[in-house]
Amino acid sequence: MADYAAAIDNDELELWPDFFLEKCLYSVISRSNYEAGRQAGFIYCDSRGMLIDRIRALRSANVYQPHLYRHIQSPTRVVAASNGVIKAETNYAVIRVSVPDGAMVVFSVGRYLDEIILEDSRARFRSRIAVTDSDMIDMLLVIPV
Amino acid sequence: MADYAAAIDNDELELWPDFFLEKCLYSVISRSNYEAGRQAGFIYCDSRGMLIDRIRALRSANVYQPHLYRHIQSPTRVVAASNGVIKAETNYAVIRVSVPDGAMVVFSVGRYLDEIILEDSRARFRSRIAVTDSDMIDMLLVIPV
Amino acid sequence: MADYAAAIDNDELELWPDFFLEKCLYSVISRSNYEAGRQAGFIYCDSRGMLIDRIRALRSANVYQPHLYRHIQSPTRVVAASNGVIKAETNYAVIRVSVPDGAMVVFSVGRYLDEIILEDSRARFRSRIAVTDSDMIDMLLVIPV
Repeated sequence: MADYAAAIDNDELELWPDFFLEKCLYSVISRSNYEAGRQAGFIYCDSRGMLIDRIRALRSANVYQPHLYRHIQSPTRVVAASNGVIKAETNYAVIRVSVPDGAMVVFSVGRYLDEIILEDSRARFRSRIAVTDSDMIDMLLVIPV
Repeated sequence: MADYAAAIDNDELELWPDFFLEKCLYSVISRSNYEAGRQAGFIYCDSRGMLIDRIRALRSANVYQPHLYRHIQSPTRVVAASNGVIKAETNYAVIRVSVPDGAMVVFSVGRYLDEIILEDSRARFRSRIAVTDSDMIDMLLVIPV
Repeated sequence: MADYAAAIDNDELELWPDFFLEKCLYSVISRSNYEAGRQAGFIYCDSRGMLIDRIRALRSANVYQPHLYRHIQSPTRVVAASNGVIKAETNYAVIRVSVPDGAMVVFSVGRYLDEIILEDSRARFRSRIAVTDSDMIDMLLVIPV
């Protein structure tokens, strides 16, 4: 969990896709949509290739206002573990820091719902769903949560 | 700690009283009142029955503006352990999310002062005092911290 | 990590220097300065004596507007351990609470870059660099981060 956050917060985004299995789910969705059983969210990717594309686009486009994230996470709650799959939940807050002026805002709070598999002695996400408590994301969601 | 927060944040409030012993103390008090040795706080309950009543009232009354909490907690500090009682302290921040508009504010920061007892292979609070750093709670405190 | 934060947050600042070795580095520096390889930061102390002086000055001067901090920290990431030195990184957020009116603001977010040594069965910092994501600190930095 801490390594994942560090890759994003320290702007080592190229490391980010490797936290996931080749065939995976990464989704950022509001709580109300998630609870209503909808799949439509702010982000939906179902392969590591899509994650790689996402970072590549972000690096090349680069049209957004410079900002960075800082994740603060609660200790993780393991809710199930069977057949080699660990299901875990982690509360998070992401503080967004605007680079030009240093302004800080609480950008998103919520929880990660994870399915984790150990592969080649490394834990990877089969599925990571970031359920945001707020329905509003106050700008284009560019950097992954 | 994580399970407790999840019960509140995920709106499974009926699970909340069972984190406490039958005879227990749950209190939310400001730091200045706590340090002055006062007991008067925002909330004071000294039995599990009072906790159950509190949730029942909250569910039936339901007159407050819809909002939810998200707890972000630091790792817990065990400060003593003897005679079957664990004393622990945990820093917390509660972000309140307004449901209609998704606005987020830092609602409360402080620390939990806990006395924990293992009973039937489950850890329960004999006492949980949430000491809030701020003297101000900017609305009626409805959902427990 | 939790003890360190508690000493600051609970206003037991006299305990703070003892988290460091006699010969140590404690620095608070912005991310942009840190990444540019500069040493100049908001705070720079290279001995425990300087830390003690700092707290003494803070206690005697006491001219700043009363406020307190609350640290919320992610679980720690151990990035290396060899020759008796543990290198660790921890994401943090510091919420500043104004004492007269209870107002809360996100004062600083960032990460601690630590070098830790076990000495006399106690872990102490040989080096703790608090890298703040924002270049701005919105008031005189008095209390250590």
